[in-house]
Amino acid sequence: MPIRIGIVGYGNLGRGVELAIAEQPDLALAGIYTRRPPETLAPATQAPVRPYEDLLAGELAATERELDVLILCGGSRTDLPEQTPELAARFTVVDSFDTHARIPDHYEAVGAQISSTTAIISTGWDPGLFSINRVYAEAVLPTGQTSTFWGKGLSQGHSDAVRRVPGVAGGVQYTIPAPEAMEEARAGRGGEAPASSKHKRHCYVVPADGADPDAIREAIVTMPDYFADYDTTVEFITAEELETNHQAMPHGGFVIRSGLTSAESRQVIEYSLTLGSNPEFTASVLVAYARAAHRLHTRGEHGVFTPFDIAPGLLHPADPAHLRATML
Amino acid sequence: MPIRIGIVGYGNLGRGVELAIAEQPDLALAGIYTRRPPETLAPATQAPVRPYEDLLAGELAATERELDVLILCGGSRTDLPEQTPELAARFTVVDSFDTHARIPDHYEAVGAQISSTTAIISTGWDPGLFSINRVYAEAVLPTGQTSTFWGKGLSQGHSDAVRRVPGVAGGVQYTIPAPEAMEEARAGRGGEAPASSKHKRHCYVVPADGADPDAIREAIVTMPDYFADYDTTVEFITAEELETNHQAMPHGGFVIRSGLTSAESRQVIEYSLTLGSNPEFTASVLVAYARAAHRLHTRGEHGVFTPFDIAPGLLHPADPAHLRATML
Repeated sequence: MPIRIGIVGYGNLGRGVELAIAEQPDLALAGIYTRRPPETLAPATQAPVRPYEDLLAGELAATERELDVLILCGGSRTDLPEQTPELAARFTVVDSFDTHARIPDHYEAVGAQISSTTAIISTGWDPGLFSINRVYAEAVLPTGQTSTFWGKGLSQGHSDAVRRVPGVAGGVQYTIPAPEAMEEARAGRGGEAPASSKHKRHCYVVPADGADPDAIREAIVTMPDYFADYDTTVEFITAEELETNHQAMPHGGFVIRSGLTSAESRQVIEYSLTLGSNPEFTASVLVAYARAAHRLHTRGEHGVFTPFDIAPGLLHPADPAHLRATML
Repeated sequence: MPIRIGIVGYGNLGRGVELAIAEQPDLALAGIYTRRPPETLAPATQAPVRPYEDLLAGELAATERELDVLILCGGSRTDLPEQTPELAARFTVVDSFDTHARIPDHYEAVGAQISSTTAIISTGWDPGLFSINRVYAEAVLPTGQTSTFWGKGLSQGHSDAVRRVPGVAGGVQYTIPAPEAMEEARAGRGGEAPASSKHKRHCYVVPADGADPDAIREAIVTMPDYFADYDTTVEFITAEELETNHQAMPHGGFVIRSGLTSAESRQVIEYSLTLGSNPEFTASVLVAYARAAHRLHTRGEHGVFTPFDIAPGLLHPADPAHLRATML
């Protein structure tokens, strides 16, 4: 019998989860839950669409017996701080809560609601796979420095900032790691560098009719917080080019730890992601952790967990003996 | 109170463990155990050197109350198949058993001896860190291909083969990943490639006085199993160059998984190691898993485990709340 998954929230991430479940041999999509009118959603699969409120019905209803794990696909700003605690009270859940500074609060809030369910929070890639690589690398090489680089990737916040500049009709912004900063990190000299010296920013901008390109460029490269401290390039393109070449959501990055095990021996551990679609990849990580959450719950391990608490083998569909024989 | 570690076996790996323990805040070296005459060892630290037999003394003696974890630093061919089971019967242990095909047998043999101790086998980097990256990557991207590359690194077995060629006075062999094969792996076309098309071999050879270099080169590049199927380069050097430039034991490699989450979205996960000293790095991994073994044992989780069973946070000295606040 497959593990029955409910998707909560059907934006880019929820659609990615729908795709990812179809790739897994032991998972089945049982339903999509939304706060929008259910009839307005058009899922890629035949999954039933139901109102979010069904998950909160006063009595523990049939819903809970039809769902093994909920994958929460809302945003970290307003959705997950409310939804993860309230749903974890009744369901085994996973989320990708990614406001790093608020993770301890979120952990406490979720844990306070749990009695007999299991929650894994802050899965995805950062937090998530990048985080566990930081922990593994620092545990193995205690004397050294860790540097995280993001990109090449589309930044939603910086793209929004570009589009707010007067005279801009459309645009996107890519964050790009600086190759020289990556070499410094590998050499063990990267620990103190600020993000602005480790990354470049590249903007593709469609000017509005009659707008002054020089004024747009100046407004972007001098924008405080977003661009002023960075090596920023502004490139003007047509609306057609924007539509054709910049609709994907690539992302990725690098976690590099460089350390010494003796005066002569430098050791470098590097983990990198090159992602054609950021939301589809994050969704794929959520789905693997949903399997782990179900396994923990089934063996009676209730409470709130993060990727730091989850053994690698729990994510993989094969049984432990098969993994030892084929993957070790 | 620190976790008290005993080192069993004092070759390159044991010396690496001695260095690695000194880098860890919560571990202390309690003793080195050897099958050689103890007085013939010259440890880098003040650690006491004792005979291996002390670990097997008929009664459960003071030794066991002085040691929390034994790190077994013997070889996989003859030492560990005997030592890990017999020592795991009395002590919590970690090893780096690396004969991939025999891991299931080793797991069973160790498990059969355990009643109230904890053993983690096959730590290190391959098996070990490479293995867990294969599992994470395959769990997240079920539709895709995984390729493992080794090097650039000194291969002991191939160096021995070079030195057995008539007319060779000395030499070393490095295994080097083929860049074009790595690009194929990233593009998702690397799954079926044999090791010989994924790696090049570079030999540095000191010819004996009067030896014929062409005959040496021919003997090496045509040697079955070791070199004939590979792109092999033979470079002649002096004995002084061998001594000056080729005494380190670098190694490393890459685990690349390339997969699709939808028809348009290729996702690439890559993990790589660039190691100045192979034995010192392997030792550093063993030491981090020794911490995990002690924590498991302390909380009553007895039995035999592999890196697939060990949550990342167990390897790191910080407590879980600190990890969540700073590393997630």
